[in-house]
Amino acid sequence: MHASAVWRTKVPRNPNLEKLQTTYLFPQIEMKKKEHLLKNPNANLIELGVGNTTEPIPKCITSSMAEHCHRLATYEGYKGYGDEQGNKDLREAIADVMYKNTSIDGTQVFVSDDAQCDISRLQLLFGSVVTMAVQDPCFPAYVDSGVTIGQTGDYMASTGQYQNITYMECTSDNDFFPRLSNMPRTDVIFFCSPNNPTGHAASRFQLEKLVDFATSNGSIIVYDTAYSEFITDDSPKSIYEIPGSKQVAIEISSFSKFAGFTGVRLGWTVVPTELLYSNGSPVINDYDRVVCTSFNGPSSIAQVGGLACLTPQGMKEIRKVINVYQTNTKLLIHTLTSIGFQTYGGTNSPFVWVHFPGRKSWDVFAEILEKTNVITIPGLGFGPAGEEFIRFSSFARPNSMQQACRRLKDHFTKN
Amino acid sequence: MHASAVWRTKVPRNPNLEKLQTTYLFPQIEMKKKEHLLKNPNANLIELGVGNTTEPIPKCITSSMAEHCHRLATYEGYKGYGDEQGNKDLREAIADVMYKNTSIDGTQVFVSDDAQCDISRLQLLFGSVVTMAVQDPCFPAYVDSGVTIGQTGDYMASTGQYQNITYMECTSDNDFFPRLSNMPRTDVIFFCSPNNPTGHAASRFQLEKLVDFATSNGSIIVYDTAYSEFITDDSPKSIYEIPGSKQVAIEISSFSKFAGFTGVRLGWTVVPTELLYSNGSPVINDYDRVVCTSFNGPSSIAQVGGLACLTPQGMKEIRKVINVYQTNTKLLIHTLTSIGFQTYGGTNSPFVWVHFPGRKSWDVFAEILEKTNVITIPGLGFGPAGEEFIRFSSFARPNSMQQACRRLKDHFTKN
Repeated sequence: MHASAVWRTKVPRNPNLEKLQTTYLFPQIEMKKKEHLLKNPNANLIELGVGNTTEPIPKCITSSMAEHCHRLATYEGYKGYGDEQGNKDLREAIADVMYKNTSIDGTQVFVSDDAQCDISRLQLLFGSVVTMAVQDPCFPAYVDSGVTIGQTGDYMASTGQYQNITYMECTSDNDFFPRLSNMPRTDVIFFCSPNNPTGHAASRFQLEKLVDFATSNGSIIVYDTAYSEFITDDSPKSIYEIPGSKQVAIEISSFSKFAGFTGVRLGWTVVPTELLYSNGSPVINDYDRVVCTSFNGPSSIAQVGGLACLTPQGMKEIRKVINVYQTNTKLLIHTLTSIGFQTYGGTNSPFVWVHFPGRKSWDVFAEILEKTNVITIPGLGFGPAGEEFIRFSSFARPNSMQQACRRLKDHFTKN
Repeated sequence: MHASAVWRTKVPRNPNLEKLQTTYLFPQIEMKKKEHLLKNPNANLIELGVGNTTEPIPKCITSSMAEHCHRLATYEGYKGYGDEQGNKDLREAIADVMYKNTSIDGTQVFVSDDAQCDISRLQLLFGSVVTMAVQDPCFPAYVDSGVTIGQTGDYMASTGQYQNITYMECTSDNDFFPRLSNMPRTDVIFFCSPNNPTGHAASRFQLEKLVDFATSNGSIIVYDTAYSEFITDDSPKSIYEIPGSKQVAIEISSFSKFAGFTGVRLGWTVVPTELLYSNGSPVINDYDRVVCTSFNGPSSIAQVGGLACLTPQGMKEIRKVINVYQTNTKLLIHTLTSIGFQTYGGTNSPFVWVHFPGRKSWDVFAEILEKTNVITIPGLGFGPAGEEFIRFSSFARPNSMQQACRRLKDHFTKN
């Protein structure tokens, strides 16, 4: 702030934003990283924190995007605005490849600039009158966007929770699935599987229970499958594999981790035509309105890249990239387990969730950063039930991961 | 809707979305176009409607984007997430090129996926407690996003206005500038110059009055300059050319029309550090929080393209493209004037605003479409003061524009 800026407008600060306690989690981690580098300018930092992809995008995908860029310089190939909901061919390809055994078709797929942005657009859709539930721990954007739109009351320092949000504890004690019989009804249930941060993928049986619960309560599930391509067992990759889900579930997903599109920015949201508000009007109509008013489709270049991802060759190449991260995950689990830590996740997810009994997660984060120059994420950042845990991401170059594992082993075995 | 979908959730429809009367204006025009093509499959349609750019992007810009795509396939060139606020070099280039005679620097520039998306992010920032004013007529996203976030009351069919919005009439009677002495105070004032749809660029004198008005009321101006590169006279291209504006104004702008990026998606918002809420806290801090929570930066490829636009070569090439549209505008004005219509705008804008005295704008729109196969936009879509007017866009290939002008002349001179 400039010292001279003493004049103020008479515009009140948004009381919802005033409720937010801290900066958004991931920029907070970036700040910690910058502080560390300022103190230790020569630190050889390894980032297992924010979950930033590190492997290049397969050439068949980047080439198609580059060709599209060149076409934009020609009269024949130039195109301005696309459809607000995304290009028809990409919507259909997502339906065909990702939802082939369901009745989801392209008209129910809204292509976007990523799942995180869609979370806020969904909150615009719901407005401030609905009640919401989240898993605890969970990806922080669900809670923060709910606070921003005005669905919540104040933050309660004693519990680390916001009033008016139902926190569904998902820990090793309940196989990372909430005890639904103890849960009150809410209008909206945010549910992420494979889970960020715990790495747990809900089983078919668990998801059937979730859909039953939503159906009996007349709730809407917002199902986040941003990590579904990391599933290695028979856990469902989409909520729409569960019968009855189309009447109660919206699904959001992303090309970010799946295809290394964190910087390219591409994702999607599925809103089934069967999903109705209590007054009988289709949710998809209102979502379409929100998308047309507040968004205008993702970059055409990113959309061409997404289409290339979904070709047989694209999918084959992406699989190799995912394998790199999965090899990292195995090494990470092996290392942490051999030190004696209890780890969770990793089998169906790029995230490993590690227990540090009796310790504050921000302290463990600081210790690991200071002693090993490895960035992680403190579990508390994902909700009160994340205390005592650290999230390790497997998004790193293999040699970095090997080095990080050596450092972690050295530090924790000699201490 | 499937006939079998009778089961409903118990989730209430968002009462704010329920207030919206019609689909968003531009998709509505698309629907009219599709209906027309269904009835007239061989119609040789010319689109002077939505304002969709038609000239290719200069090669020096597309090549830089293509090169970036190729780099994303290499270990050396791959990069995942960028900063949520946009890349530092692009933020600084925008400040240097677009705000060179102001004290706006890169830290106050938030790069985005376009001005339309930023309008809704600004509404998330303000929340539902503020009051707003818009020009009448105006770009429909200001009103619709205000309704969506809950700033307004119901739609009043008798006036065509929403309760709780101040409509500042901007017509030829007042040189397209509101009679501010008659205007009540509002927290936020949306102001677009060069104006969409009227094509009027506010003069320095007018903008000084606007900044004075906002300062004496403690209001925040959201100044939309998406068309500033079309200014040909000495009208200010940025609100920050006006002394005192940094304490009262946010500016949004776009690469869409300026560089043909309607499909590439790139824009920006400036929030000066001097802009404070009534409680003294800086607006920029909250906007940063909104951007980090609800957005994650625009596509890295689009950002590389934006940087190429702002080089001397890029700006020179873009100028040639803008000249094409400006030649179109002149022809359009010449044609319509020679028929006998009163036209406004066009000198500083790609839009020409044409008066059809005593006629309903949707009727004129339908007549022009049916008789000449030319798509336009009915003025009423921009607000009640747009009745009796049609917005013509000059975004068309020159030969299409020539043909459209011939058809318009034929139709309106023989009738």
